[in-house]
Amino acid sequence: MGQLTVNTQKGSYNVHIGEEVYDLFSSDYHELLMNADKVAIFADETAGALHLEKIEHSLQSANIPFVVHILPAGEKIKTPECYISCQSFLLQHNFTRHSVLIAFGGGACGDLTGFVAATFMRGIPFLQCPTTILAHDSAVGGKTAINMPEGKNMVGSFHQPAGVLFKPSLFKTLPEREKRSGMAELFKHALLADQDWTESLLLSPSFPNLSEELLTVELEKGIRVKAEIVAQDEFEHGVRQFLNLGHTLGHAIEAYFGFGEVSHGECIMIGMAYSLILSEEFGEISPEFTSRFIEFAFASGYPMEAIAKVEFNPLLQFMKKDKKVHSGEMVFVLLEKPGIPFTQTISEERCEEAYKELKIRLKKGM
Amino acid sequence: MGQLTVNTQKGSYNVHIGEEVYDLFSSDYHELLMNADKVAIFADETAGALHLEKIEHSLQSANIPFVVHILPAGEKIKTPECYISCQSFLLQHNFTRHSVLIAFGGGACGDLTGFVAATFMRGIPFLQCPTTILAHDSAVGGKTAINMPEGKNMVGSFHQPAGVLFKPSLFKTLPEREKRSGMAELFKHALLADQDWTESLLLSPSFPNLSEELLTVELEKGIRVKAEIVAQDEFEHGVRQFLNLGHTLGHAIEAYFGFGEVSHGECIMIGMAYSLILSEEFGEISPEFTSRFIEFAFASGYPMEAIAKVEFNPLLQFMKKDKKVHSGEMVFVLLEKPGIPFTQTISEERCEEAYKELKIRLKKGM
Repeated sequence: MGQLTVNTQKGSYNVHIGEEVYDLFSSDYHELLMNADKVAIFADETAGALHLEKIEHSLQSANIPFVVHILPAGEKIKTPECYISCQSFLLQHNFTRHSVLIAFGGGACGDLTGFVAATFMRGIPFLQCPTTILAHDSAVGGKTAINMPEGKNMVGSFHQPAGVLFKPSLFKTLPEREKRSGMAELFKHALLADQDWTESLLLSPSFPNLSEELLTVELEKGIRVKAEIVAQDEFEHGVRQFLNLGHTLGHAIEAYFGFGEVSHGECIMIGMAYSLILSEEFGEISPEFTSRFIEFAFASGYPMEAIAKVEFNPLLQFMKKDKKVHSGEMVFVLLEKPGIPFTQTISEERCEEAYKELKIRLKKGM
Repeated sequence: MGQLTVNTQKGSYNVHIGEEVYDLFSSDYHELLMNADKVAIFADETAGALHLEKIEHSLQSANIPFVVHILPAGEKIKTPECYISCQSFLLQHNFTRHSVLIAFGGGACGDLTGFVAATFMRGIPFLQCPTTILAHDSAVGGKTAINMPEGKNMVGSFHQPAGVLFKPSLFKTLPEREKRSGMAELFKHALLADQDWTESLLLSPSFPNLSEELLTVELEKGIRVKAEIVAQDEFEHGVRQFLNLGHTLGHAIEAYFGFGEVSHGECIMIGMAYSLILSEEFGEISPEFTSRFIEFAFASGYPMEAIAKVEFNPLLQFMKKDKKVHSGEMVFVLLEKPGIPFTQTISEERCEEAYKELKIRLKKGM
């Protein structure tokens, strides 16, 4: 079983990767769960239908009583209405500030459960048990949030989990599209961290369908990148911003289509292509590298063409609501080269030009 | 102008008391407000109608642009719906993580604004400008929250304000009932801190209508008690629990009648009488002291009789949802004597007996 530690202001917690992670309910996390007066699993519909018995069985083996709350799958789980109904669920089941939550599902389930845990009676502990590849990113780092009609992740807290338990065999049942979504964030971690790693992924013939063994190795590398950045800058005043690579445009596209219509990672893949185009001017990225990335994205099945239909102005409105906006100026994460990110303020005009350029390059790539 | 400092994990902030506190927008808080890309005043209807121009004028003099969001008065402001609508308001006005909020109103307005600030884009700074005596308590200490249909303050965060500005002349327009409500929390601070201070308040002929000068002095003493406890135990793992003196029964009564039907402080006054009765058994409080307290409460105009109508069982259901409950056991803050609080687990049976006793004593006091 792989294990790495995330250090934060309020202490550290562990991220575990492997087939036996749920055995930790009987060991590493037994005290936390036994001392809780109530335990709830917040499972999304998808994970609940496919895998709930696995986590239930492990909790039962550890003699831990629990209740299960099944929530809608996808981004619907992150509405204000769902957030409030979860709080009512806990109160109606007599949960207290000594209770513990377990998030069992995709990234959206973890974000919602984390925000419920952050704010129920001003904060209770929670465990992250992600069931998707994408959640390897969101489950680590303590960013919790819900969406507003006006934008994604607009309301939330920093609330670190008590532990993160990854069980890679759960990823076997993921649809192709969900795998692509998760692997986009993995690719982002490579782009931020390491040129060689980036190159090896670009050359990977089976991306995004890595074998379970290879996936476990790659995920652990991705989480390590995330954990190191979070430890340096938990509250995103500095280097943590780099994790938003591809997210300013990506989130705008996601919001434009309506959350859930296109997958998060697919949008981020397009957002990274956009950042690479901007990085040609502001950094040292070559047009050749951007082209290889776009070809790789097409070859890996990312639906890059969807973007070609969207006009710039509606996306701009969403980008202006982005949390990275400061005094009306848009700040983007760009790359000097893979492994060396930086932030850059960019004018609306330049953003629009780069967007036109992106459309042209995507057409070439098709 | 009186000033005292509250020390917390993420740094310290100041509480200012005096007629010129809003001049600080041009000095102590000028940098915070000028560096913000947007500033909003969240004012409750009551404070907005009576006093808004005072704070607006000071901000204008300091050349600080702002928008005003008027919210319902009283506990209605603390509904989940109001919370979500405030988040939408900020997004629709293009607020960002570099914006600042100002809470201008009663304690409920501060609680709501603080929780919006705690969670808007995962946290932005806010200033507390309380307009009621009661808010001298809630504005200091960083407890923010909204109510749920199932109970009061059930969802919230710890989020310390950037500063707290008290302007005692605003309290002149408070209705008698609101003054009584605020002075109950002041009395609580005396009971927790100091026997002599408690005695002097019990003998005060003008309670709860102290002169502005005397009120300023007493409030500063009350805030000092609160600030010292918060500095010792920001997240309520220890001594901060003592601030809940009178609140377990008090909140239950408030919830039973529906928030806003009876005032918070009035309920706390009854809750303190109940705690004194329990303290006769578990602490060193004399029945004579409790009697003097009850007489004082009647003489000061607290509507103690309302309680005599309520049955125990419905209150018990609310008490069990209290955040102080641990593994189904109810924990109360009691007093060895004034100035020496402690916590005590008490059985449901004993709670019910003490409640019957309270009803009898209240009848005697009438």
